[in-house]
Amino acid sequence: MQIEKYKIDEFNQKHAQEHKRRFEFTASSLHNVEGVLQKLVDFQIGIPSWALGTGGTRFGRFSGSGEPRNLEEKIEDVGLLHALNQSSGAISLHIPWDIPTNASSIKALAAQHGLRFDAMNSNTFQDQPDQKLSYKFGSMQHVDKAVRRQAVEHNIEVIKHGVALGSDSLTVWLSDGSSFPGQLNFRKAFQNTLESLQEVYAALPDNWKMFVEYKAFEPNFYSTTVGDWGQSLLYANKLGPKAYTLVDLGHHLPNANIEQIVSLLLMEGKLGGFHFNDSKYGDDDLTVGSIKPYQLFLIFHELIEGMDARGMNHATDLGWMIDASHNIKDPLEDLLQSVEAIMIAYAQALLVDRKALTGAQQQNDVARCQEILQEAYRTDVRPIVAEARLRSGAALRPLQLFRELKVRENLINERGLKTVATGL
Amino acid sequence: MQIEKYKIDEFNQKHAQEHKRRFEFTASSLHNVEGVLQKLVDFQIGIPSWALGTGGTRFGRFSGSGEPRNLEEKIEDVGLLHALNQSSGAISLHIPWDIPTNASSIKALAAQHGLRFDAMNSNTFQDQPDQKLSYKFGSMQHVDKAVRRQAVEHNIEVIKHGVALGSDSLTVWLSDGSSFPGQLNFRKAFQNTLESLQEVYAALPDNWKMFVEYKAFEPNFYSTTVGDWGQSLLYANKLGPKAYTLVDLGHHLPNANIEQIVSLLLMEGKLGGFHFNDSKYGDDDLTVGSIKPYQLFLIFHELIEGMDARGMNHATDLGWMIDASHNIKDPLEDLLQSVEAIMIAYAQALLVDRKALTGAQQQNDVARCQEILQEAYRTDVRPIVAEARLRSGAALRPLQLFRELKVRENLINERGLKTVATGL
Amino acid sequence: MQIEKYKIDEFNQKHAQEHKRRFEFTASSLHNVEGVLQKLVDFQIGIPSWALGTGGTRFGRFSGSGEPRNLEEKIEDVGLLHALNQSSGAISLHIPWDIPTNASSIKALAAQHGLRFDAMNSNTFQDQPDQKLSYKFGSMQHVDKAVRRQAVEHNIEVIKHGVALGSDSLTVWLSDGSSFPGQLNFRKAFQNTLESLQEVYAALPDNWKMFVEYKAFEPNFYSTTVGDWGQSLLYANKLGPKAYTLVDLGHHLPNANIEQIVSLLLMEGKLGGFHFNDSKYGDDDLTVGSIKPYQLFLIFHELIEGMDARGMNHATDLGWMIDASHNIKDPLEDLLQSVEAIMIAYAQALLVDRKALTGAQQQNDVARCQEILQEAYRTDVRPIVAEARLRSGAALRPLQLFRELKVRENLINERGLKTVATGL
Amino acid sequence: MQIEKYKIDEFNQKHAQEHKRRFEFTASSLHNVEGVLQKLVDFQIGIPSWALGTGGTRFGRFSGSGEPRNLEEKIEDVGLLHALNQSSGAISLHIPWDIPTNASSIKALAAQHGLRFDAMNSNTFQDQPDQKLSYKFGSMQHVDKAVRRQAVEHNIEVIKHGVALGSDSLTVWLSDGSSFPGQLNFRKAFQNTLESLQEVYAALPDNWKMFVEYKAFEPNFYSTTVGDWGQSLLYANKLGPKAYTLVDLGHHLPNANIEQIVSLLLMEGKLGGFHFNDSKYGDDDLTVGSIKPYQLFLIFHELIEGMDARGMNHATDLGWMIDASHNIKDPLEDLLQSVEAIMIAYAQALLVDRKALTGAQQQNDVARCQEILQEAYRTDVRPIVAEARLRSGAALRPLQLFRELKVRENLINERGLKTVATGL
Repeated sequence: MQIEKYKIDEFNQKHAQEHKRRFEFTASSLHNVEGVLQKLVDFQIGIPSWALGTGGTRFGRFSGSGEPRNLEEKIEDVGLLHALNQSSGAISLHIPWDIPTNASSIKALAAQHGLRFDAMNSNTFQDQPDQKLSYKFGSMQHVDKAVRRQAVEHNIEVIKHGVALGSDSLTVWLSDGSSFPGQLNFRKAFQNTLESLQEVYAALPDNWKMFVEYKAFEPNFYSTTVGDWGQSLLYANKLGPKAYTLVDLGHHLPNANIEQIVSLLLMEGKLGGFHFNDSKYGDDDLTVGSIKPYQLFLIFHELIEGMDARGMNHATDLGWMIDASHNIKDPLEDLLQSVEAIMIAYAQALLVDRKALTGAQQQNDVARCQEILQEAYRTDVRPIVAEARLRSGAALRPLQLFRELKVRENLINERGLKTVATGL
Repeated sequence: MQIEKYKIDEFNQKHAQEHKRRFEFTASSLHNVEGVLQKLVDFQIGIPSWALGTGGTRFGRFSGSGEPRNLEEKIEDVGLLHALNQSSGAISLHIPWDIPTNASSIKALAAQHGLRFDAMNSNTFQDQPDQKLSYKFGSMQHVDKAVRRQAVEHNIEVIKHGVALGSDSLTVWLSDGSSFPGQLNFRKAFQNTLESLQEVYAALPDNWKMFVEYKAFEPNFYSTTVGDWGQSLLYANKLGPKAYTLVDLGHHLPNANIEQIVSLLLMEGKLGGFHFNDSKYGDDDLTVGSIKPYQLFLIFHELIEGMDARGMNHATDLGWMIDASHNIKDPLEDLLQSVEAIMIAYAQALLVDRKALTGAQQQNDVARCQEILQEAYRTDVRPIVAEARLRSGAALRPLQLFRELKVRENLINERGLKTVATGL
Repeated sequence: MQIEKYKIDEFNQKHAQEHKRRFEFTASSLHNVEGVLQKLVDFQIGIPSWALGTGGTRFGRFSGSGEPRNLEEKIEDVGLLHALNQSSGAISLHIPWDIPTNASSIKALAAQHGLRFDAMNSNTFQDQPDQKLSYKFGSMQHVDKAVRRQAVEHNIEVIKHGVALGSDSLTVWLSDGSSFPGQLNFRKAFQNTLESLQEVYAALPDNWKMFVEYKAFEPNFYSTTVGDWGQSLLYANKLGPKAYTLVDLGHHLPNANIEQIVSLLLMEGKLGGFHFNDSKYGDDDLTVGSIKPYQLFLIFHELIEGMDARGMNHATDLGWMIDASHNIKDPLEDLLQSVEAIMIAYAQALLVDRKALTGAQQQNDVARCQEILQEAYRTDVRPIVAEARLRSGAALRPLQLFRELKVRENLINERGLKTVATGL
Repeated sequence: MQIEKYKIDEFNQKHAQEHKRRFEFTASSLHNVEGVLQKLVDFQIGIPSWALGTGGTRFGRFSGSGEPRNLEEKIEDVGLLHALNQSSGAISLHIPWDIPTNASSIKALAAQHGLRFDAMNSNTFQDQPDQKLSYKFGSMQHVDKAVRRQAVEHNIEVIKHGVALGSDSLTVWLSDGSSFPGQLNFRKAFQNTLESLQEVYAALPDNWKMFVEYKAFEPNFYSTTVGDWGQSLLYANKLGPKAYTLVDLGHHLPNANIEQIVSLLLMEGKLGGFHFNDSKYGDDDLTVGSIKPYQLFLIFHELIEGMDARGMNHATDLGWMIDASHNIKDPLEDLLQSVEAIMIAYAQALLVDRKALTGAQQQNDVARCQEILQEAYRTDVRPIVAEARLRSGAALRPLQLFRELKVRENLINERGLKTVATGL
């Protein structure tokens, strides 16, 4: 299924007047609306290929319908999202779930949908049917050099696929760790992992980045070998200038101050990528902004502050991606809600009066600092975000149009009721 | 210091036009604005007498200036808040910090400021200079009946003070518990506490309520004898129809779903009171809405849903109070921000389209349920809250007027730079 | 495979002298060793049928070998454990994973191994291939009465299977809840669940118990409809005298004081069953005693205290069961370690000088209270536990004998390398 | 009060026979008992001067009696502990609470008790009566250079006091941070702090170390500027070879794997010091080993593993100190229990069969790894620890002798019932 441009235009025209009224009201109180709009237009969020199917937990999975059955259909799905919101212009592939058998035709297909290939993702947390050695006790940390070598080679293979598709970064998430005290020598596990990463790093093309993702726990339940930002930063520093830390919102201990971590990583020049999702308990992988929207805003506030301080380009200098699990919502609807939440938080953060904030900070006027942040956060920026979409040819209200066009019903007709996408 | 009415009017007139524009825009998209406004006008939040001075931690306290030196000045402070926002029409006293030596004159003074006396608070978590027996090892749970008796008598004394002032409820927060395994027999501690509470309950006037407040930890660090809502509800049920559970936002284990607790307590007819504050780590006692404003909205959503289901009056059928610590902000400014955050969350929750939500819930349309809640939450309700203030004679922007009128500077002039209010 | 008695005797004789030396030394400092030994001999821990295969996480599963392929082989596995430690004399079945097609022959097989049937477990957290209605949005809480009815009928079916096997209790664990704010009406979900449980309760035989298990989160990530002990107790009280709360060690929020919960539930006469496991982060389902052995001891301390206060029989008046996941260890070895950890904690708790403790508590001698607990905990009770095993015909060191007899290798020979047991 | 040596000898003789029996039994199963004993004899734990008085919380303090009234009496107290256990041979001073007006006489007094001066502690988390500028909004992070300068000068002053006393390290714990979003620019706060620390570092004598202590939260409740090990390590690396990270057990987010942190810091050559205490909820500052003794053992296991790998001397190459709060126990008794718990954990960790463990790790024999650790942990090492004490002239059972000698009663006689030591 494809969404013809005229359907979007029809929809927008129907809602144009009401939108105009809201946008003009909102814009009237803001400085530099045009600058904000341009930033919103430019901002693109990568969609991971594995998020297009229904997710599950160890207790089971309740399948959805009309899920993409192959890489082509995954690209089609992201294309649908991008047509609706013009903010999802990238897809992030996972190997071996998405091996492109014909890279150039896949690349052409993506281009048709206006999509580029975001960071490539390797998988050494599962055993594949044809795999020689098992990752049951880790991959890059493994006590057996042969297992480490296998993991390294897999990552090098992933880079090759990425090169063929025009990607320029590799995300390495390792589930390596231990579930019981004594199982691992922490130091040796660190050093084995470092050595393995160095071998992958050596295979990186010059213009590529490597993102070292950390996670506090799960699937290992006692220790994780890349467990927090401190560890990830140690690896990134030891690896070299092309290595960066990747922050996933759900990968922290309870109550962690993620916005401070973001600020410090930017200070060190070592923040590379970002995985959006939300959570209440652990790595719940819920819809972005569904649980702690203020935290999301605060994180964007630090992202902007830190990137601006280094003269970085918001849209291109970090890897932005959603990484969530859609267990009980339609994955495409869930992704539309997630992108909307991200754009809202980004827009709110762009509205922060940074000059006033710096002044209030200088005076330790804490109440005023809070007022300044909340002034931006409490603003209803939805008309601004909608206007940015309008200008880029997207729908004023993507989710509503998704439903009006009966996108899922169409996909079920095309693909069938019982389809299961590769992924978790 | 008192704030003359004409100063508020002057301020409001200066901002009238801009306010009108915003209010009319916001109101134009809402159903039943008048109903919402009336509910906001009626809603009053109690201010605890101990929150008017600078708070601290075990590591120290950085005093503020111009703090109230006695009960009269505390009432004056709450009067100032109420004059500015007309939403703080009650004060909650703590005995022995606020013993009214002449109840009728204190009552008259409060009435002058438009204030009534909210729940009375007892203190058996500290030893007073003239106290016979120590609470070092608990009060109502104590192994020594004489200590329990002393705690009971103190509470009965507090009720008497409350009767004289026209209060109609007693909040019992017990710090009782243990800091080390083995220190307590949990069952006997529970039973001693129940027996003590029963003696206090027996002394309650007919029209009074008793609120049993729970807290997960601190100042005891291994167990707390009224530690969670389950324990508090056990006490309340065993005590009788005048006993209720009181929920304090900061008194939970990490990640607790407080809104669900609120819903269940309302279902059981046993939610009695509410202490507002915010926190990131523990019982941080931060400004309401400064850390998790969406959680605050969700809690109000459940409060309204549950109260409406029982035909309860929002304004009068629960005890609403702020209970925070103002360590680095001016306490009065902090309280103005807290009240504002509460009114915003309440207003947002009033905007939830409950009929549509029930429909979506019936269809398990989870994405739609989220849209409905977020539609309300993302609305900028500040003009609605301001309009409610305007109608009740308060300032459109209380904090701004507080600063323009140099209230704190005036209080310093009157009371001095080095004053320390009683409290924590 | 079966372990002939003479092999155990041979093993024990080989280690008899060293054991005797250790036991006599340990026993020499203890009062009432014989009483402790008898309690240890009597204590039996149920093994869940789903714990006999390799577990996994949502990220994958690394299969083991020689896993039981059907109910008969699961009984064989528990029989092996019981032969080795004589403390695993019960098996807990899960329907539909373990439907006994011929109950009487299954019962006879179990009896051969000296096993009885512990609590039956129902499953409404997954959809079965032939199932009419889906549990995607809950089972007993479901907005659709037909789904609730289906869940109720399944539970009644489970009871029937249990009756045929001689079980006398039903454990109901519901994953019901919500993953997003707004998805559920908490109150209606509670009431639907209660109504469903009441229908199941009505079908309970007179001598049966129903255990209402609670869990803080997972697989739902925003709310759980039986989420904590307070909620479970509400259900149990509303259901009636045959309904009890079941405590699973891994089902709590961070830092919860589980031993206090145990004490209060015993006080209320509503503790029914216990699921043992261990965890660091969430419901990690790790080997019992592998992370927080002191907490396990403290829980046993409260169990004994509370059961003795009510004159309960340790061995028979509560349902004791392991409920863990064996992702990276051999399940049988893991279960042997778990049972050992339970017996050690139970033995240590039996050694607590309760009279001295009560005395120290009466005097608020906190340091002494701690000394008394730690005196018991620091004692090396392994010789006592081994002696109890010796007396009941089990192996002095079950895990060592398991390895010496090459039990797993034998099972692989019998069952094959690639077998997958039903379960998570 | 001083404890004459003959009283200790008398006590030991009374218990000699029973001790001998236990020691011989325990020693008979161990390899290299003499080596273990020597390590235990050598191991000395610093006692902080502020732990000798009763601690409290923000809710109040319940004073003890006979507390030390000045530095001399604090040294006397530590001398008493050291006489009893010969493992507390150092005292850690806090400036300005313990300013030595005559350094050489204080030094001589300490020497009389066999004590040396451990790390010096500065205080920029409180305002002192005569202090020019306030630390209300931080010290080394402060936006005002003059405040930072004051904090730096204070630390340099502390170094000078330390030099005079023969100390050779400075512990810098900063409470700097923020309580509200927006209050701080995280990056500038980091950089200000770094700059301040650099100025202090420049004043360090050649043979001195600087310990940078981190803490997750409290007294600031939104962010802490040295908040976790990752931040502390960043500072230490930027400062230079004399700067190290200090780990305090209570200063982590819930569920943190502290033993892994210890291992990684040792790997990096940047672990400098250690603060012992225990906790269940936050920075509870409870008696060492009273809540999570197995975690303490695992930490010692990593300490030994990591120190041995670097050829470090256990006794002298890290700064070992207790840092707890004694709210409801007699501080001296609490410290005796703490030292005992540390010695037990250290002894258990020394018993780990490291060669076997390395072998099992190499084979991914997870069950065996756990057995090896638990074999050591489950051993009752109290006779070994007692033997080490016996050999160094201390009491077999320090706490028991403390009570038999009525030490506290003696101190009350000397110092009075109502004394309050400086400290928190």
